[in-house]
Amino acid sequence: MQFSSKLIEDAVNAFAALPGIGKKTALRLVLHLVQRPTEDSVHFARAIASMRENIKHCTTCGNLSDQHVCSICSDDRRDQSLICVVESIRDVMAIEETQQFRGLYHVLGGVISPIEGIGPADLNLHTLIERARQAETREIIMAISPTIEGDTTIFFINKQLTDVDVAVSNIARGVSFGGELEYADEVTLGRSIVARTRV
Amino acid sequence: MQFSSKLIEDAVNAFAALPGIGKKTALRLVLHLVQRPTEDSVHFARAIASMRENIKHCTTCGNLSDQHVCSICSDDRRDQSLICVVESIRDVMAIEETQQFRGLYHVLGGVISPIEGIGPADLNLHTLIERARQAETREIIMAISPTIEGDTTIFFINKQLTDVDVAVSNIARGVSFGGELEYADEVTLGRSIVARTRV
Repeated sequence: MQFSSKLIEDAVNAFAALPGIGKKTALRLVLHLVQRPTEDSVHFARAIASMRENIKHCTTCGNLSDQHVCSICSDDRRDQSLICVVESIRDVMAIEETQQFRGLYHVLGGVISPIEGIGPADLNLHTLIERARQAETREIIMAISPTIEGDTTIFFINKQLTDVDVAVSNIARGVSFGGELEYADEVTLGRSIVARTRV
Repeated sequence: MQFSSKLIEDAVNAFAALPGIGKKTALRLVLHLVQRPTEDSVHFARAIASMRENIKHCTTCGNLSDQHVCSICSDDRRDQSLICVVESIRDVMAIEETQQFRGLYHVLGGVISPIEGIGPADLNLHTLIERARQAETREIIMAISPTIEGDTTIFFINKQLTDVDVAVSNIARGVSFGGELEYADEVTLGRSIVARTRV
C-alpha cells in the first residue's frame, strides 16, 4: 500500500497488527475514524489503553478483573462451596451466560500441552489446590474442553486432589441438545451410549 | 455478553463500535491485547488518537495529509499540468499503486447523489475549478466510478469547466484486462463494442 500520510500509515499498521485484521480492513477502519468526530477516536484509544494499563488478574481465581479480587469472587451471594475450573475468561463468560451456575470459578489460563510446551507450572494450578483445601470448598467442577490436552489436565488436577477432602466432577459430555443424532460425530455418539444415564 | 470487568466491557464496546466488528471479534481482539505487553496497547492507542488529532485535509487537493499541503501536491518532481479527479483517498492509493500516473490529484470526497442528499456544494469542487483555471494546468482526468452518480458528477464538472482552457478526459472504460469476455457484464461488453478503438 502506498500512503501519502505517515499518520494514516501508522494507524493502519496498528490495526493490521491485531489478529485477523488485514491491511485493507485496517484502512477501512482508519478511514471510518477519520470521518467521525475526533472525540470518537480519542474515546476509543482511551478505552483500549486504560483497559490494558489497569486490568488485573484476580488473585483468587485468575479471572480478568478491575480489582485485585474479581466481582464474582467478591460476590457473597454466590455459592462459595463450588469451584468451576475453566481454561480461559471466555469460558467464564460462556458459563455466566447460561445462568445455570452460581458458584465460583478458577481460570487455569490454558491446559497442559507437551506439544506446545505448556506444563503444569505454566498454569494457575497452585492456588487451585490451596482453594480446594479450604474448609468451605465442597466440590471442584471440571469444565475443561473434552480434548486429549483437556483430559490430561483433568487427570493431573484429580491426582493432586487425591488427599484433599473435596468432590471432583466433570461437566456432562454427550450429544448436543437440539442436535440430530445422525450428525453427531462418532466418538461423541459412541461415548454417549457407553455413559448412558437412567431415565 | 456477561462481563465481570468494566474495563474489558468498555474496550470490547469500543472495538465493536467499529464497522464490521462484532462483539465476539471485539472480545478476541481485547483478549489478544491483554496477553501482549502493556506497551503494545499503549502504542496502538497512541497511533489511533494521534492520527485522528493531527490528520488534515490537504488545502490544495483535499487528500488526507500530515501537513497543510500533502506529500503529493508538494512533490515538485510530479507533473503539475495533470490533475486526476477521484472520489476518495482510497482511489488515490489505488492509482498510486499502479505507478502509471505522476501528476496531481483532486479528492472530491464523494459523488453527486440526490438519493443520499449529496449535492455539488457538499463536495470539494470549488477548489477544483480554481485549480483548473491556473496557467500550469493542462488536463483534468476524471477517474470516477462508472455509475449513474459518477457520470452525473463528471457531467456537472465538465459543464463548470466549459469556459476554462483545459482538456477534460475520462479514464478508459471497457472489459477488464485478463478477464474472459463471456464473464463481462452485458453493459460493459456492449459499451466496449460501441467505444472500440483502432488497433
